[in-house]
Amino acid sequence: MISRFAVPARTELPPDLQERIDQVEEKTGFVPNIFMALAHRPEEWRAFFAYHDTLMDKETPALSKGDRELIVVATSAANNCLYCVVAHGAIARIRARNPRIADQVATDWRKAELDGRQRTVLELAVRIAVEPWTVQAEHFEPLREHGLTDDDIWDVGAIAALFAMSNRLVHLAGTMPNDEFYLMGRVPKKS
Amino acid sequence: MISRFAVPARTELPPDLQERIDQVEEKTGFVPNIFMALAHRPEEWRAFFAYHDTLMDKETPALSKGDRELIVVATSAANNCLYCVVAHGAIARIRARNPRIADQVATDWRKAELDGRQRTVLELAVRIAVEPWTVQAEHFEPLREHGLTDDDIWDVGAIAALFAMSNRLVHLAGTMPNDEFYLMGRVPKKS
Amino acid sequence: MISRFAVPARTELPPDLQERIDQVEEKTGFVPNIFMALAHRPEEWRAFFAYHDTLMDKETPALSKGDRELIVVATSAANNCLYCVVAHGAIARIRARNPRIADQVATDWRKAELDGRQRTVLELAVRIAVEPWTVQAEHFEPLREHGLTDDDIWDVGAIAALFAMSNRLVHLAGTMPNDEFYLMGRVPKKS
Amino acid sequence: MISRFAVPARTELPPDLQERIDQVEEKTGFVPNIFMALAHRPEEWRAFFAYHDTLMDKETPALSKGDRELIVVATSAANNCLYCVVAHGAIARIRARNPRIADQVATDWRKAELDGRQRTVLELAVRIAVEPWTVQAEHFEPLREHGLTDDDIWDVGAIAALFAMSNRLVHLAGTMPNDEFYLMGRVPKKS
Amino acid sequence: MISRFAVPARTELPPDLQERIDQVEEKTGFVPNIFMALAHRPEEWRAFFAYHDTLMDKETPALSKGDRELIVVATSAANNCLYCVVAHGAIARIRARNPRIADQVATDWRKAELDGRQRTVLELAVRIAVEPWTVQAEHFEPLREHGLTDDDIWDVGAIAALFAMSNRLVHLAGTMPNDEFYLMGRVPKKS
Amino acid sequence: MISRFAVPARTELPPDLQERIDQVEEKTGFVPNIFMALAHRPEEWRAFFAYHDTLMDKETPALSKGDRELIVVATSAANNCLYCVVAHGAIARIRARNPRIADQVATDWRKAELDGRQRTVLELAVRIAVEPWTVQAEHFEPLREHGLTDDDIWDVGAIAALFAMSNRLVHLAGTMPNDEFYLMGRVPKKS
Repeated sequence: MISRFAVPARTELPPDLQERIDQVEEKTGFVPNIFMALAHRPEEWRAFFAYHDTLMDKETPALSKGDRELIVVATSAANNCLYCVVAHGAIARIRARNPRIADQVATDWRKAELDGRQRTVLELAVRIAVEPWTVQAEHFEPLREHGLTDDDIWDVGAIAALFAMSNRLVHLAGTMPNDEFYLMGRVPKKS
Repeated sequence: MISRFAVPARTELPPDLQERIDQVEEKTGFVPNIFMALAHRPEEWRAFFAYHDTLMDKETPALSKGDRELIVVATSAANNCLYCVVAHGAIARIRARNPRIADQVATDWRKAELDGRQRTVLELAVRIAVEPWTVQAEHFEPLREHGLTDDDIWDVGAIAALFAMSNRLVHLAGTMPNDEFYLMGRVPKKS
Repeated sequence: MISRFAVPARTELPPDLQERIDQVEEKTGFVPNIFMALAHRPEEWRAFFAYHDTLMDKETPALSKGDRELIVVATSAANNCLYCVVAHGAIARIRARNPRIADQVATDWRKAELDGRQRTVLELAVRIAVEPWTVQAEHFEPLREHGLTDDDIWDVGAIAALFAMSNRLVHLAGTMPNDEFYLMGRVPKKS
Repeated sequence: MISRFAVPARTELPPDLQERIDQVEEKTGFVPNIFMALAHRPEEWRAFFAYHDTLMDKETPALSKGDRELIVVATSAANNCLYCVVAHGAIARIRARNPRIADQVATDWRKAELDGRQRTVLELAVRIAVEPWTVQAEHFEPLREHGLTDDDIWDVGAIAALFAMSNRLVHLAGTMPNDEFYLMGRVPKKS
Repeated sequence: MISRFAVPARTELPPDLQERIDQVEEKTGFVPNIFMALAHRPEEWRAFFAYHDTLMDKETPALSKGDRELIVVATSAANNCLYCVVAHGAIARIRARNPRIADQVATDWRKAELDGRQRTVLELAVRIAVEPWTVQAEHFEPLREHGLTDDDIWDVGAIAALFAMSNRLVHLAGTMPNDEFYLMGRVPKKS
Repeated sequence: MISRFAVPARTELPPDLQERIDQVEEKTGFVPNIFMALAHRPEEWRAFFAYHDTLMDKETPALSKGDRELIVVATSAANNCLYCVVAHGAIARIRARNPRIADQVATDWRKAELDGRQRTVLELAVRIAVEPWTVQAEHFEPLREHGLTDDDIWDVGAIAALFAMSNRLVHLAGTMPNDEFYLMGRVPKKS
């Protein structure tokens, strides 16, 4: 299921949405359901993906693209968000070149194959997802000790916040992950 | 406190941010702290306010602007978000022309001076804020019985989702409400 | 609403209740609803206000009357008790001469404009309200470091305990705050 | 342990406290620790026992003294209050003439040897103890169907509220039950 | 009640079950209900008691049989398991030669008459019962400091795990404790 | 990691353990870590696998082997048990011939591709895993309406109970899933 709400025909979408969706399809081989589930609201669609892209298509020395996906997986799992865990789990496996990492982080990030830096990142991210009112400046210290800048720490928190929204939109719409995501990044690409 | 993170000088902001901030200041009499707390990230700032405006500056027969503010107050209170409760509580009082409604909804929405329609709206909104994974299509029925369309129901859920993000950004930044908000909408305007 | 239960006529109350209610009305300008909501049980009424007065009409060097009201606001907010948050929030604003403090403590005491001593006081009070079985003697130490005596610590705990009862009586009766409370202490008195 | 706080000598207590304590000792054979744990505060002591006596030393057709003790046991167990569970469990066994009932209600009231009326009473009482903000007038209906009057329903709620306070005072003081309570009501009295 | 499910006649049970049940009856004076509640499934019965006996009929310098019963009482109380609290509470009183210890550990193990070693044992056991995903190797340290070997620590965890199963089987079947258990170990044996 | 505790050499294990482990290895192609993690305790090992086999190697018209594995996945996910989710998720995919079902049930069983019967099964199983004290006979009715016999209902509950134990043993030992499990059942077997 793509959505409990209206899903417009792709050909009726505003040109900028069509263009982006065509690009994603070309690159990924299919259109992830979230693109169509939000499409009945072009203004919100634009804001959502603008927010998403600026936080996720980014790489710093202390916070790789793979790390960012793991934040999504850990916090979405805390919200039982199937779409986000499966879709971003796929991307996380690819980015981290580790076919086990998404299942580990989704089920029990405390025992996942992470280094110390990643563990502090997920600890803050899950706190922001689950009990954000307890966040104090002192919770940033372990991340700083692992080399994260203030900009990186903001990214950790902002990604957790963005997917707090995303998880809830998905639960509202009842969006399921595309079948293709489940297997992505699990088997070595043929050479 | 505006933020635990960098707060750029207003004069150094991109022109579109400056323009909007000037407009808000002119209309409201001061610059709400959230505008400056997010300003170190212009891309995110633009996405956030685009999302916000399209959902909040809207009025339908079954979901007024005041109702939308009450959704923000109820869900932000569930997240102990002081900035959002106080700032949107002020707007809710003004929109609903009721000086008590924000304190009521923030502390115990079950006992607030609401009609049956508003109560079903807040019940769904709080569910999405607190345990979104339990949302099923059947939870939309009580809202439909009170005249909400599918578009209205999406708005209820999307506002709850947007402020799930907003609350977490505020807790991340440690942003406090401007002093002016506390009193707004509590005393009748002088004629 | 004053109560889901019987509310006797003021003139039919025992003389001592009438006298106290008259005094309160004279001093405050109205009769707070709790006085009438409990009045169908004069014995309980007397015990309740005797307990209340001995703990709340008191001031020590390390625990002012305003501090005591903040304990009520913080613990009552943890119980979503609208009457107690609004009524004692009003008194707290007046006692603390701070028009913002009650809203802050009610929504997120961790971020409120408090000094270190007040923060330790509210931390113990909220623990007693929410998970009293975890209280150990070691939890008194931070309060002692801020100058609280054993008598003061008892007061902190006893106020939290008394309002655990009071909050539940109010939820039982469905008592709403008087309209007058909402604005009290928010605007400077005319000179 | 009687208390983490001061425990005055019995001979130094105000005469009315001494008199009541003497009476209890004569009747019960020992002085329950709560009488001494609260004695450093005679005003509070008087209010507490006045409240207690008016609610607990009472019997109506639909709410016996034994039922009242079971409310105390069920709600105190929800708060892990050892003193109240053991002391009032003893009284409950005696009043209900059932040596198993207190252990059952303390551990799992849903499976205890109760009739339908008692079950509705404990269900409301535990709701008031644990999540009082959810109480609505509709929750009184099952009790009315079992013959409870409004006065009885108030008693159920007020007892749950009083012991919400009592449990917290005991956790504050660290008061342990007297050894005598553990066995009371478990073995048939010698004839 | 022995069970919501089938309870076979004792004479129809496989000989090994009959033999063990006869032995227990001879030793204890009655047949504990759990033996009959599980008897409709001889394979499971055998596995359950094999597991039980190897962990509970054991004594090491740092973990006595009485300590093992206290683990059962504390973790079963966290699961509101009436049968296990009452039946193993009886054995705990006898093994520990303390008529108060089971009621204390069941209601509030933090305040029970335990030494420091026992407290660390129950702290780990309750953690495994309630939030096992948080267990880290560092949580074993306090037990090691009190002389527990790795084998002892495994026993603590395995007993908590076994009764996580046992508690759930009992709740599934609705098994009540035999009347005899309530009084066992409370009164000194006649000499 | 196989375990935080001793892992004996395979050649030093009792012959019956060696034999079973050899069989599993031959059939599966590797030795699942749980077999070695429990091997330092042969008595417990035997009881555990006896219990496991009698409940899991079984198929009835209303409860297939695949259904049984889904019970394990759903309840183990509620306990964040990585080993059980990944290992039994692999078996569930194979048994149910559905490469998506395990990820769905682990993350959000409410939205998984299940039929009505399976949904009632998982609803009871998760209740037993998470809040077993609330189970009443009435909770069996929806399963009966879907054709489950009393024996099937017992199996649902007993599997949930067994893995309540298993999950806790795994968290105690810190056992990680074998790498092989992650991919099993995700790609069609070559013909």
